[in-house]
Amino acid sequence: MITSFSLNGFLASGISAGIKDSKKLDLGLIFSERVASVAGVFTRNKVKAAPVIVSQAHLSMNEGKAKAIIVNSGNANACTGHKGIEDAIMTTQFVANELGIDRKEVLIASTGIIGKRLDVNIIHSSVPKLVRGLHKNGLDSVAEAIMTTDTFPKISVFEGDKYKIVGIAKGAGMIMPNMATMLCFILTDICIEPDPLKYILLRVVNKTFNRITVDGDTSTNDTVFIMANGASSEDININDFNLALTKVCFDLAKMIVKDGEGASKLVDVIVKGAKNPDDAINAARAVANSNLVKTAIYGEDPNWGRIMAALGKVDISIEPEFVDIWIDDIQIVSSGQETGSDSEVLAIQRMKKDEFSIIIDLKKGPYQDHILTCDLTHQYITINAEYST
Amino acid sequence: MITSFSLNGFLASGISAGIKDSKKLDLGLIFSERVASVAGVFTRNKVKAAPVIVSQAHLSMNEGKAKAIIVNSGNANACTGHKGIEDAIMTTQFVANELGIDRKEVLIASTGIIGKRLDVNIIHSSVPKLVRGLHKNGLDSVAEAIMTTDTFPKISVFEGDKYKIVGIAKGAGMIMPNMATMLCFILTDICIEPDPLKYILLRVVNKTFNRITVDGDTSTNDTVFIMANGASSEDININDFNLALTKVCFDLAKMIVKDGEGASKLVDVIVKGAKNPDDAINAARAVANSNLVKTAIYGEDPNWGRIMAALGKVDISIEPEFVDIWIDDIQIVSSGQETGSDSEVLAIQRMKKDEFSIIIDLKKGPYQDHILTCDLTHQYITINAEYST
Repeated sequence: MITSFSLNGFLASGISAGIKDSKKLDLGLIFSERVASVAGVFTRNKVKAAPVIVSQAHLSMNEGKAKAIIVNSGNANACTGHKGIEDAIMTTQFVANELGIDRKEVLIASTGIIGKRLDVNIIHSSVPKLVRGLHKNGLDSVAEAIMTTDTFPKISVFEGDKYKIVGIAKGAGMIMPNMATMLCFILTDICIEPDPLKYILLRVVNKTFNRITVDGDTSTNDTVFIMANGASSEDININDFNLALTKVCFDLAKMIVKDGEGASKLVDVIVKGAKNPDDAINAARAVANSNLVKTAIYGEDPNWGRIMAALGKVDISIEPEFVDIWIDDIQIVSSGQETGSDSEVLAIQRMKKDEFSIIIDLKKGPYQDHILTCDLTHQYITINAEYST
Repeated sequence: MITSFSLNGFLASGISAGIKDSKKLDLGLIFSERVASVAGVFTRNKVKAAPVIVSQAHLSMNEGKAKAIIVNSGNANACTGHKGIEDAIMTTQFVANELGIDRKEVLIASTGIIGKRLDVNIIHSSVPKLVRGLHKNGLDSVAEAIMTTDTFPKISVFEGDKYKIVGIAKGAGMIMPNMATMLCFILTDICIEPDPLKYILLRVVNKTFNRITVDGDTSTNDTVFIMANGASSEDININDFNLALTKVCFDLAKMIVKDGEGASKLVDVIVKGAKNPDDAINAARAVANSNLVKTAIYGEDPNWGRIMAALGKVDISIEPEFVDIWIDDIQIVSSGQETGSDSEVLAIQRMKKDEFSIIIDLKKGPYQDHILTCDLTHQYITINAEYST
């Protein structure tokens, strides 16, 4: 199979190892033929899964250099104590042995059920097959192998004159600012040291993955890795690269919200006119995470009272009688009061679309921010009442 | 109809005024024959409805004394600007005129849709009938007149040797610590000044209504009033009264969660062993408000990984490998790890009950707190996608 997801110097492989009962792909490997600069951003949840702890240690010990990422779905290896950490270390050792590299050059990520030991025997017996399967166009099978409740694999590519960026991601529930049950692996051929790469990644993650929410919950396993292998010898403009990486990450972030558990609508909650940057983001988060707003979105109901109530519950500078609210281009609230039934009818039409914006102007200052969210649906309840994560 | 909800010196009345299209009761009046000491606790939402603003003003102008409370459902009179405030003032004036008392002696509360003007003509033409309907046993019809998505009226009575307490409440969605779309009116015959009454009410509300959650949203209209008319001349022990009032409020708080929109289970999330009081309450709130935990409760799934993830996302002192978790008397997590499949089977049985506890021991200190919550169900989505609040 020929895809455009390949990148010079990177090989990848995805197989069904049997961690999931479903026989779907559940084990993936990304391999950089040369030592790559790597940066990682991890969950801020205080309950960190074993693979997060092991990857942080390896990155630190090897000063931001690595050659491989092993990833599994079906088991998060979280809340598994010191034995879970040993299991994660053993997994990286199996991969290192098979590839003939140092264990510290192998990073690891996991997603799936929390609190159950990972069966390392399965991993042990599967790694040779996984390594044999490494090939230039293997990244799409890794994108598939990291899926849990995701309904489609998430891949985004930026192809510039001087360099290329390929990103894959998974994430459907437990998504919230500060990332959650989200894995993302980004490959690029630029030549860069680990420190500036980390600086760029942090900024970009903050503008993209930390601006999405599905259900306000955060997870134990979130990980974003970027690997830069230096295969492109071209000089790059860092600002241009920053923009390109932002594009790829925002693209993936949008796919994650769109695929939010049970989601049927993608909504950008934009807050303008905030007194300070914190007010802007806190107001956007409050609206984007409100179950009442999210069910109103599902019901295609321009229920601005719920938006006002959500705004009022956070500690921001707000005067209700200043607030304007729009659904896309339709103003439904002017200076804290409804604009009338004509605009309500038009707003309902806008809300029938799969994607729209809720724009809130606090008229208290110059700051603006946004959060991408989705609706809260019957399907979310069905998925989460039945699926053990 | 003779009920036990009457209290010496208090009259009440509830009618269908036509504010709701459904023809159900929607206007209520409570009248104290003598001037009563009154204390109020109001929403902390920054977007406050007109009746909240007017009641606060009246209580302050009249130094905590009042004789009547007028309440309507079907319209919250929130986000209605200065005209909404005029409407609320006019409503209290109609009642004052009809009762022959001062406007400042009339308090007001509303619940229902946000952002629509209240039709004061309806109120004006209904108040005479409402006043004519005042009678000793009218409180049950007020309890009915304040219902919105509530499925049953909420009444609790404490009858002691020296005094009596009768409380009514409404509240089904938008319930969260710090109170939300919640109205509660408590009547008692003790003799007490407004200041100590307010002190007691604040403490009791904090231990009861501020310890419940349905969906983490808070509202614009929350109000708790207590009226003490001094009809009982007995000396009372303040500590005893505090306990009795706590019992009545906790009883009503439990009914509110039990009647949480779409709720099928009532769950007490108890956090023990916290390093400090803030950690205890913040941990309990994080678990009680997590959509993933609440859907797991709905699915009768002892999914402790979601509990751990919820604990980890708040800024508390926690070491995952210290944490113990029980469902009632069944320990499912010991020192951060699962206790095995036998206890899982037993925990599933416990979760089939309508009421149970999730007990979390952080083993970091001596502090304990709790939050009452409910499950997140298909019915919640149906109610909130279809009902305009």
